[in-house]
Amino acid sequence: MDVLTAGEAMMALRATGPIRLGSGFTTSIAGAESNVAIGLSRLGHTAAWAGRVGTDEAGHLVTRTLGAEGVDVSAVRRDGTAPTGVIMFEQRLPDVTRVQYLRAGSAGSRLCPDDVEALPFEPRIVHVTGITPALGASCRDAVTALCRLARSRNAQISLDLNHRPRLWTREAAAEALAPLAAGADHVIASPDELALLGSGPPESIAARLLDGGVTEVVVKNGDEARSYTADGTRTVPAHRVNPVDSIGAGDGFVAGYLSGLLDGLDAEARLRRAHTVGAFAVLTRGDWEGLPRRDELDLIGLPEGAALR
Amino acid sequence: MDVLTAGEAMMALRATGPIRLGSGFTTSIAGAESNVAIGLSRLGHTAAWAGRVGTDEAGHLVTRTLGAEGVDVSAVRRDGTAPTGVIMFEQRLPDVTRVQYLRAGSAGSRLCPDDVEALPFEPRIVHVTGITPALGASCRDAVTALCRLARSRNAQISLDLNHRPRLWTREAAAEALAPLAAGADHVIASPDELALLGSGPPESIAARLLDGGVTEVVVKNGDEARSYTADGTRTVPAHRVNPVDSIGAGDGFVAGYLSGLLDGLDAEARLRRAHTVGAFAVLTRGDWEGLPRRDELDLIGLPEGAALR
Amino acid sequence: MDVLTAGEAMMALRATGPIRLGSGFTTSIAGAESNVAIGLSRLGHTAAWAGRVGTDEAGHLVTRTLGAEGVDVSAVRRDGTAPTGVIMFEQRLPDVTRVQYLRAGSAGSRLCPDDVEALPFEPRIVHVTGITPALGASCRDAVTALCRLARSRNAQISLDLNHRPRLWTREAAAEALAPLAAGADHVIASPDELALLGSGPPESIAARLLDGGVTEVVVKNGDEARSYTADGTRTVPAHRVNPVDSIGAGDGFVAGYLSGLLDGLDAEARLRRAHTVGAFAVLTRGDWEGLPRRDELDLIGLPEGAALR
Amino acid sequence: MDVLTAGEAMMALRATGPIRLGSGFTTSIAGAESNVAIGLSRLGHTAAWAGRVGTDEAGHLVTRTLGAEGVDVSAVRRDGTAPTGVIMFEQRLPDVTRVQYLRAGSAGSRLCPDDVEALPFEPRIVHVTGITPALGASCRDAVTALCRLARSRNAQISLDLNHRPRLWTREAAAEALAPLAAGADHVIASPDELALLGSGPPESIAARLLDGGVTEVVVKNGDEARSYTADGTRTVPAHRVNPVDSIGAGDGFVAGYLSGLLDGLDAEARLRRAHTVGAFAVLTRGDWEGLPRRDELDLIGLPEGAALR
Amino acid sequence: MDVLTAGEAMMALRATGPIRLGSGFTTSIAGAESNVAIGLSRLGHTAAWAGRVGTDEAGHLVTRTLGAEGVDVSAVRRDGTAPTGVIMFEQRLPDVTRVQYLRAGSAGSRLCPDDVEALPFEPRIVHVTGITPALGASCRDAVTALCRLARSRNAQISLDLNHRPRLWTREAAAEALAPLAAGADHVIASPDELALLGSGPPESIAARLLDGGVTEVVVKNGDEARSYTADGTRTVPAHRVNPVDSIGAGDGFVAGYLSGLLDGLDAEARLRRAHTVGAFAVLTRGDWEGLPRRDELDLIGLPEGAALR
Amino acid sequence: MDVLTAGEAMMALRATGPIRLGSGFTTSIAGAESNVAIGLSRLGHTAAWAGRVGTDEAGHLVTRTLGAEGVDVSAVRRDGTAPTGVIMFEQRLPDVTRVQYLRAGSAGSRLCPDDVEALPFEPRIVHVTGITPALGASCRDAVTALCRLARSRNAQISLDLNHRPRLWTREAAAEALAPLAAGADHVIASPDELALLGSGPPESIAARLLDGGVTEVVVKNGDEARSYTADGTRTVPAHRVNPVDSIGAGDGFVAGYLSGLLDGLDAEARLRRAHTVGAFAVLTRGDWEGLPRRDELDLIGLPEGAALR
Repeated sequence: MDVLTAGEAMMALRATGPIRLGSGFTTSIAGAESNVAIGLSRLGHTAAWAGRVGTDEAGHLVTRTLGAEGVDVSAVRRDGTAPTGVIMFEQRLPDVTRVQYLRAGSAGSRLCPDDVEALPFEPRIVHVTGITPALGASCRDAVTALCRLARSRNAQISLDLNHRPRLWTREAAAEALAPLAAGADHVIASPDELALLGSGPPESIAARLLDGGVTEVVVKNGDEARSYTADGTRTVPAHRVNPVDSIGAGDGFVAGYLSGLLDGLDAEARLRRAHTVGAFAVLTRGDWEGLPRRDELDLIGLPEGAALR
Repeated sequence: MDVLTAGEAMMALRATGPIRLGSGFTTSIAGAESNVAIGLSRLGHTAAWAGRVGTDEAGHLVTRTLGAEGVDVSAVRRDGTAPTGVIMFEQRLPDVTRVQYLRAGSAGSRLCPDDVEALPFEPRIVHVTGITPALGASCRDAVTALCRLARSRNAQISLDLNHRPRLWTREAAAEALAPLAAGADHVIASPDELALLGSGPPESIAARLLDGGVTEVVVKNGDEARSYTADGTRTVPAHRVNPVDSIGAGDGFVAGYLSGLLDGLDAEARLRRAHTVGAFAVLTRGDWEGLPRRDELDLIGLPEGAALR
Repeated sequence: MDVLTAGEAMMALRATGPIRLGSGFTTSIAGAESNVAIGLSRLGHTAAWAGRVGTDEAGHLVTRTLGAEGVDVSAVRRDGTAPTGVIMFEQRLPDVTRVQYLRAGSAGSRLCPDDVEALPFEPRIVHVTGITPALGASCRDAVTALCRLARSRNAQISLDLNHRPRLWTREAAAEALAPLAAGADHVIASPDELALLGSGPPESIAARLLDGGVTEVVVKNGDEARSYTADGTRTVPAHRVNPVDSIGAGDGFVAGYLSGLLDGLDAEARLRRAHTVGAFAVLTRGDWEGLPRRDELDLIGLPEGAALR
Repeated sequence: MDVLTAGEAMMALRATGPIRLGSGFTTSIAGAESNVAIGLSRLGHTAAWAGRVGTDEAGHLVTRTLGAEGVDVSAVRRDGTAPTGVIMFEQRLPDVTRVQYLRAGSAGSRLCPDDVEALPFEPRIVHVTGITPALGASCRDAVTALCRLARSRNAQISLDLNHRPRLWTREAAAEALAPLAAGADHVIASPDELALLGSGPPESIAARLLDGGVTEVVVKNGDEARSYTADGTRTVPAHRVNPVDSIGAGDGFVAGYLSGLLDGLDAEARLRRAHTVGAFAVLTRGDWEGLPRRDELDLIGLPEGAALR
Repeated sequence: MDVLTAGEAMMALRATGPIRLGSGFTTSIAGAESNVAIGLSRLGHTAAWAGRVGTDEAGHLVTRTLGAEGVDVSAVRRDGTAPTGVIMFEQRLPDVTRVQYLRAGSAGSRLCPDDVEALPFEPRIVHVTGITPALGASCRDAVTALCRLARSRNAQISLDLNHRPRLWTREAAAEALAPLAAGADHVIASPDELALLGSGPPESIAARLLDGGVTEVVVKNGDEARSYTADGTRTVPAHRVNPVDSIGAGDGFVAGYLSGLLDGLDAEARLRRAHTVGAFAVLTRGDWEGLPRRDELDLIGLPEGAALR
Repeated sequence: MDVLTAGEAMMALRATGPIRLGSGFTTSIAGAESNVAIGLSRLGHTAAWAGRVGTDEAGHLVTRTLGAEGVDVSAVRRDGTAPTGVIMFEQRLPDVTRVQYLRAGSAGSRLCPDDVEALPFEPRIVHVTGITPALGASCRDAVTALCRLARSRNAQISLDLNHRPRLWTREAAAEALAPLAAGADHVIASPDELALLGSGPPESIAARLLDGGVTEVVVKNGDEARSYTADGTRTVPAHRVNPVDSIGAGDGFVAGYLSGLLDGLDAEARLRRAHTVGAFAVLTRGDWEGLPRRDELDLIGLPEGAALR
């Protein structure tokens, strides 16, 4: 098992026009951690996702889709007392997407330490995000338990800060995420998210994290990504692309980054792969639907209008 | 104002195939009381619907759609602290529809007496259903408050028992609905629902209700409807049709029945109109989308294959 | 050239749901005469259709579609001063279709004698319907001119009475259609349409037409068709099918009947083929889209659930 | 009542591909004046639209849609003798849209003074466009009558010149629009349209209009808008956006401008709001479907790829 | 492992209208053996499918879909030298479906003994059909090899005769299928298919098979199924349903039958479950999409118009 | 007859999303030669296409579509022993299209000299491409036979090199295409394709071709096109457009170029028309669907956001 991750995966509804005008929805699944698991599986790594879904059709959709993508869902629990969460997307303007959650009281938000602390996997990496702790106390405890499991099995811990302002305040997020970051090996954040972990410029915050035992801090925005390690700082510019749907870019980036780690790539090559997988995410519709197989990685960078015939 | 009604109206999602296979959804609104209000408005009556919706796009969809159908939504309250409820339909087999609610904690289920007790309308009829009291204590109180308002303004009270087994037990329903029925002028029920109000055959239960002050008890199934009044019992068979989508049949029936009441039709004619509007509901997709305008009532009964050219 | 026909062909819009709710439309073409021409072409006969279309995209759609079906459209005139007509269909109930015309002032309704009187074809049959004369005086004259052309070239004349109550009154129809029928060789009508040509039972009206020189009178309803000729009367029951879309049934019937005539079938076999082609029309969506090729005629009558594998 | 407007609203059909290839249509409504009324209603103003529709389903679509958007349609007249007009759009190239009208003889084009001269509203602004007078003499008279009503009720008059070359010549337009402009308080035009009202550069034409009693002349193109008033000239550049569908841009601009007037904004702020609402129109599909609610105005200008979560 | 099966699975294209008119396609997968595997997996059994697919997207679709349904595809081979086969369905008439194969030279038809003879599974049942041997010599040998493997691992062999007239003649089929049937434990056939195995009435052919060592012969048509065993003959009538799409009925029947075998049901109960699963197949679109989970088996037989709320 | 061409035309399936995720397909036809024939027909020239199709529905789709576009298909042969070929397109990234052929053993690839050597047409130009010879020996011979026919009827020969790396190697292509080019009057190629015909810069290769008897060599890429003739070299830049779908650009270019030749335009004007028709191809979906009629040629170059009203 290369990577184990846990969190909430929801039924994702994408409006085909304005919701208020009665436009319909296409259906998929979404969840930062499950997106990363799919991205890794498509690149040929083995990945498991743990979490709770309802016994409703949406829950079957979640596990069916992850299973289809080769993600190990044997540890998923079905909770007959709560519905699977729903996330709705409406592209209000070409560059502005409105997101609504129907996840309060969802099965996924009932994740608890018992769901993860005895998982039978021996992963090389455990990946968590800052979304799960925002879903409630039992979720917060579950993430802590998962990191404990990682330590006990000598797995590295990867943390994507992933701040969601609709779920909690910056203060609450900072309080919960600081200890998680301190205990992680790899911390991935936007500049704005990194600021949850301290004051000062990114390089100062990163330096403090490295001092505290973190192996690598990755800070990225749409234009470039920077890796801070004990060996120094490396910056790699992103591919210049015309985004089709920017949702999922961060999860694609993380999948590419972790894939690079697993393949033993150096910091620059890891960031390049992260950018490439992120570019696939923004050049295709959906959070994860367009993520690349390994044999597709070199499609980014083909001449314009290329027909593979 | 002919009819005032209140309850929960939700965004309705109809799966275009199996949800678990990732089929999309078409969107509309649903709610027993709002369905009846639309049915009445289409028949030329004036109707208002009261209730709560969220400040989300789904809430705008609800009020926009009711407004489009000419239903007075000036009394609708927007609740910024809870989402608009969602109901999902999946036609599992031609004759079997699976229904899932995402209405726990919804704005609509926060309806409370304050929302209805000072409504400015002077309706001839106030219509309530047995669904609203099943949504929680404040909803139950709101229905009671609405019936009080009806009495104080000399409006007749119409009650559709509408038992929903997924929302509460038969015992709980019986306890809450019995006093409502006792205070109503018109009680509409399936035989199974009527049994919530007492033991024995339908005619005995109806007789007891009439004795207690109810003006008319209507009992209907797919085949026929029967009106019990002090003037006697009348039975009218339903139209023999090949259903396309049986959801909404009951609400259409009620809209036709109340329309007959408002037009001063006699009991048989009322039931005939009820059957006709119900037939429109089952012959078209959606809860209310196919309900007839007044000038369309006679389309039921045209020769097969009729082209109106 | 086996058959020449003329009339108005329109862009046909079929609503995918209630028009008033903003449902979209699928697009095709429609026109009784062009439907017959397509039906004949599919069965392997040569057919030409004459008429006027606008220079708009809808006009191109009409000629493009007829050309696709192998109908000769070399005689079609493009009229830059009027739009191509539009017909809208809304299936209001499974058995009731609402039809609206936007054909007032259309290019097609400007058909005039000059459009048809010098056509270069040498058809075996000229087919006209009672719809064209209803579109205006110049159309009426055009039909008369076409029948004159038929006579002058020794073509048989086939007339489908096709009464459209929305276009004219029974009185106006009767006055215009009587002389057309009197001059035709084959008159096809429903019992109700036949009554435009005289009083009394169908057999009396048919007898008078035969006396006046008509070769064959065909009277059909959904259940059976009857042929009246000097050789006697023959009745053939229709296929018992469960209609999907009854629009176009009559035109399919006529195409099958004329195909039988062209193939030299006897009266009973002609009616059988007419019923078969009509059955294809009602078992498929659209006026003409499902009409059979010759090698498909025997698909009617296969065992239920047949898979051609 | 903030704004009263009148004109023709049609069923709008948008081809999903080339019409001649048989592509289908999505359905909505269109009309410059009704678009403005919707835009105002969405921004929280009260607006009424007057006009004629047929008694057909398309007519119900028009009033249903306007009612859904909160536009007062109580003054709309249904004309049983003519169909509701239809406008078809085909996007021939990304930047080129083909428009076809089926509005000759439409109910909407039968608007007459009697339809508007006794309207019960007390609007602050009456808004008219140069399209309505192009539809025929009775329409021209109706616009004149509406301006008279405005004067008699102390409402300001807003005129969007809106020249439609397919409906009349520049000469005819100039003759009809000059007196309307002279009597208006606010005249809105493109440079090309302004030239209908006189020769010379825009500033000269504007100066002459101001001299004649017009309060403000607004001249706009895709790049900027300029306001000429007695207080001087102000120029505000448009938002730089990548248009999705430029149809409806002008009506959005007018709705924003009138909204600014009603809110008492100064000239620059009015033009800014006009540009913002116009930007919503071009960044979304449809004439009016994407127009903003008041709480959405600041979505223009968010960072790229913003997800409102 | 409960059941192991092997054969060809193809990309299935279902035309949404007449192919010749340019109607589009929906996409799924199809294959008699993979349909059975899905049906078993949905009922809670473990099933593996072996076969070859191309390295093209269609091949990924096949394995992704089977994986999504929980079928073990670890033994599937990807063949980079041939495309995944395609099957096209066009519903020509409500009761007549046209099927076209693009499977000549497909990866699936290159199945060979080496693909199956060393499979690591220990199945209780090995299921094969009469389709695979029709695809070519190497396929025929592969089926033989698979039956040998079954014997060597003490698995029962189930054979669905499944004659496809488009793939081979009755004579060729009879020659190839007779030895397979003789070596099977359970033989399933229509009366017409059973006649491939001998002359005389079904009971005689069945008796000879039982004499030769077959444990059970099941003969079914749309109306009933009959089980012949040493213990006697049992007949169970099919559910009376109104078919939506009869393709896949046989595979559903087999899945239900094998499920009954695995659950240790008696012959009558096995046939009842077979009929029930078959009824799901014909009451839903697609070959396998509507097959039931175990908790859905009792949906067949609910009262008409049942809403599970 | 202006132009005669021959080759393989296939059913074209365009995935509406990722094929592996089960996205559906839209349907059309494709084939370099038939695309050119359609382009010419739309511009008002007469064109015939020769080739083989199956007797399946896809074959009817091919001839029906070409017939609809006015292309003469009277010489098309139906081959009952092989299926019509299929080409699938999946837009993997906005700029990268994946193409898969199901054309091995197709009817179209069985084209042979006998299919073309006695065609009854008297074309001014015979157009062939480098795709057909790549399909097999009989196809190669058929192209040779067609060029012989051209010579014998004094038609000019136009050759579009059109190298398809998936069908053959550069070496095989070079060997087969060199003699074809040497015998052609007009050779059209990309720089890369031209290099199949010799070494050195394009101008050297072109010079050698002109020396050998070729009248004109046209070399084009996305930015510009260059014509080499005995009269000198002319370069015309392409329209600067934002491509929607680059497939079909080359065929549109050729259609425009041949149209210019037929109209007697000079070299620069020919290239301009070629670029214009090519621009239509890349600005619209599909290979040929958006190609212009003659009255549409000037739509390229209209101001942005033009509405033709």
